[in-house]
Amino acid sequence: MHSHLVAALDIGGTKIAGALVGDDGEILVRVQRPTPAREDGETVMRAVEDVLAGLAASPLWAGVTAVGIGSAGPVDASAGTVSPVNVPGWRRYPLVERVGAATGGLPVRLVGDGVAMTAAEHWQGAARGYDNALCMVVSTGVGGGLVLGGRLHTGPTGNAGHIGHISVDLDGDPCPCGSRGCVERIASGPNIARRALQNGWRPGPDGDTTAAAVAAAARAGHPVAVASFERAAQALAAGIAATATLVEIGIAVIGGGVAGAGDVLFTPLRRALRDYATLSFVQRLTVAPAVTGTDAGLLGAAAAVSPRGHDEAPTAVSLSG
Amino acid sequence: MHSHLVAALDIGGTKIAGALVGDDGEILVRVQRPTPAREDGETVMRAVEDVLAGLAASPLWAGVTAVGIGSAGPVDASAGTVSPVNVPGWRRYPLVERVGAATGGLPVRLVGDGVAMTAAEHWQGAARGYDNALCMVVSTGVGGGLVLGGRLHTGPTGNAGHIGHISVDLDGDPCPCGSRGCVERIASGPNIARRALQNGWRPGPDGDTTAAAVAAAARAGHPVAVASFERAAQALAAGIAATATLVEIGIAVIGGGVAGAGDVLFTPLRRALRDYATLSFVQRLTVAPAVTGTDAGLLGAAAAVSPRGHDEAPTAVSLSG
Repeated sequence: MHSHLVAALDIGGTKIAGALVGDDGEILVRVQRPTPAREDGETVMRAVEDVLAGLAASPLWAGVTAVGIGSAGPVDASAGTVSPVNVPGWRRYPLVERVGAATGGLPVRLVGDGVAMTAAEHWQGAARGYDNALCMVVSTGVGGGLVLGGRLHTGPTGNAGHIGHISVDLDGDPCPCGSRGCVERIASGPNIARRALQNGWRPGPDGDTTAAAVAAAARAGHPVAVASFERAAQALAAGIAATATLVEIGIAVIGGGVAGAGDVLFTPLRRALRDYATLSFVQRLTVAPAVTGTDAGLLGAAAAVSPRGHDEAPTAVSLSG
Repeated sequence: MHSHLVAALDIGGTKIAGALVGDDGEILVRVQRPTPAREDGETVMRAVEDVLAGLAASPLWAGVTAVGIGSAGPVDASAGTVSPVNVPGWRRYPLVERVGAATGGLPVRLVGDGVAMTAAEHWQGAARGYDNALCMVVSTGVGGGLVLGGRLHTGPTGNAGHIGHISVDLDGDPCPCGSRGCVERIASGPNIARRALQNGWRPGPDGDTTAAAVAAAARAGHPVAVASFERAAQALAAGIAATATLVEIGIAVIGGGVAGAGDVLFTPLRRALRDYATLSFVQRLTVAPAVTGTDAGLLGAAAAVSPRGHDEAPTAVSLSG
């Protein structure tokens, strides 16, 4: 049935997802664990190993030929290490080597999560057919990746497209990355929720204070909830406009949990883009929701190692464990 | 002596410079006029024609084989038109066709001024040998260009690298481009001078209120002058850090009149870069003054049409008049 099968890992600040993926992009087996993001590095690694063990329990595991990893960044694809901003226990953590060891020496390839999502959207999603595109994930963090001149643009270390940590408010609030006023500091899910709470929004009886709850309140017309999404949209628009102004892109694709808010996010985002994307060559920029959804990270990680997945696979490292 | 000779035009909001350039990059004849930037489009074009007439008066003119134009942006290299932000009389102005007509049908090639300066610095200047570079001009406006993966990255319309009009202060002052808080709105020469005047700096007996006079005051320790350059440096640092974070660059080269301020600009710029370029993969970024100086625009325009000038010449249009 599947001539090639790969294992994919999508490692973020909230969850570690794993899958076995066919060469047509079909996800055949899934395993997921919460990320123990505040714990030490070995504890985080044990969660990754749990996910891999769950995948290895499938009878399909015997057909797996490689492992693709999309990780929260920054990553160093040339060294095989990761230093995710939201996982302080991992700094230059040798993830490629450790995953190689945990899988009995399968070849392992690492890309940033933004690059992975971009590979997925350019392969199967909303950016298909675009030669110049920005793809973003807006969730616990804000990540991204670029397609330039028809190819994934990864940069020498595999980190290009890190739109979450460009400053759009140079005097703004300090960001955990060390800078100020980063797109992520304004537009991530936790920051949308924080701002709503600070300005007087209160959760319902279920006590849900996530960005999804703020989105529901915004849809019901709660002005503080609406304003928090408008502010996030403004920061995203400034970041997208900056990217278009710097490299010229035809489409910005937005996925991740916060994009699930739909019109609550996209309507003010398209309006704010008109304010910031002003030069003639960026005015025709399209904004579209991601198509590959929550599977983007897994699909993109698979694309990075799938023989037919994506011709322009990003810079990466292959090691036997 | 010179097997190939090209005419180069460098068109900005303050001056229109022209030169005859040998294929070794030697500038043999120069002509310059102020830009009548507030006049109608035909008046601006007459100034260009005056510069061309000045060049044509040289006995060397007979050896000219092509005309290269570097123009303030945005440009549309595919259409041969220009719409410089600071020259309102030119909107989609058919500059390539008009220069072709004025030169008796010589082939004409158009690039943005930022791309031209980048071509010059990558050919002969501080970015030589770098595969990933941002080159900037900070003067009446702020422009730029990118080298990515060893090649000029122009984008489909030739406008990539437009760092002057990315917003680093999303609630900031309105910019003539229609956006807010653009790098140019904070860091250009006129804005450095405006901010110093607003905060109490006064010119000397000569009445000079240019950024160069503010730089002299800053060197003499005037705190308001120092602060105005520090604010410009902060905006430039945020823009450079954003570029590095988005596409990965190894060097940022800064030219233009404001860069002539030297340490008054570069010392706070390097300090501010540490504040904004925080992710691991952008921390080793180098900042250097441009080498090609005020000739960068002319050299880059020449590089765009010189047979040995620059292998990766940017997107452009060639027309006979």
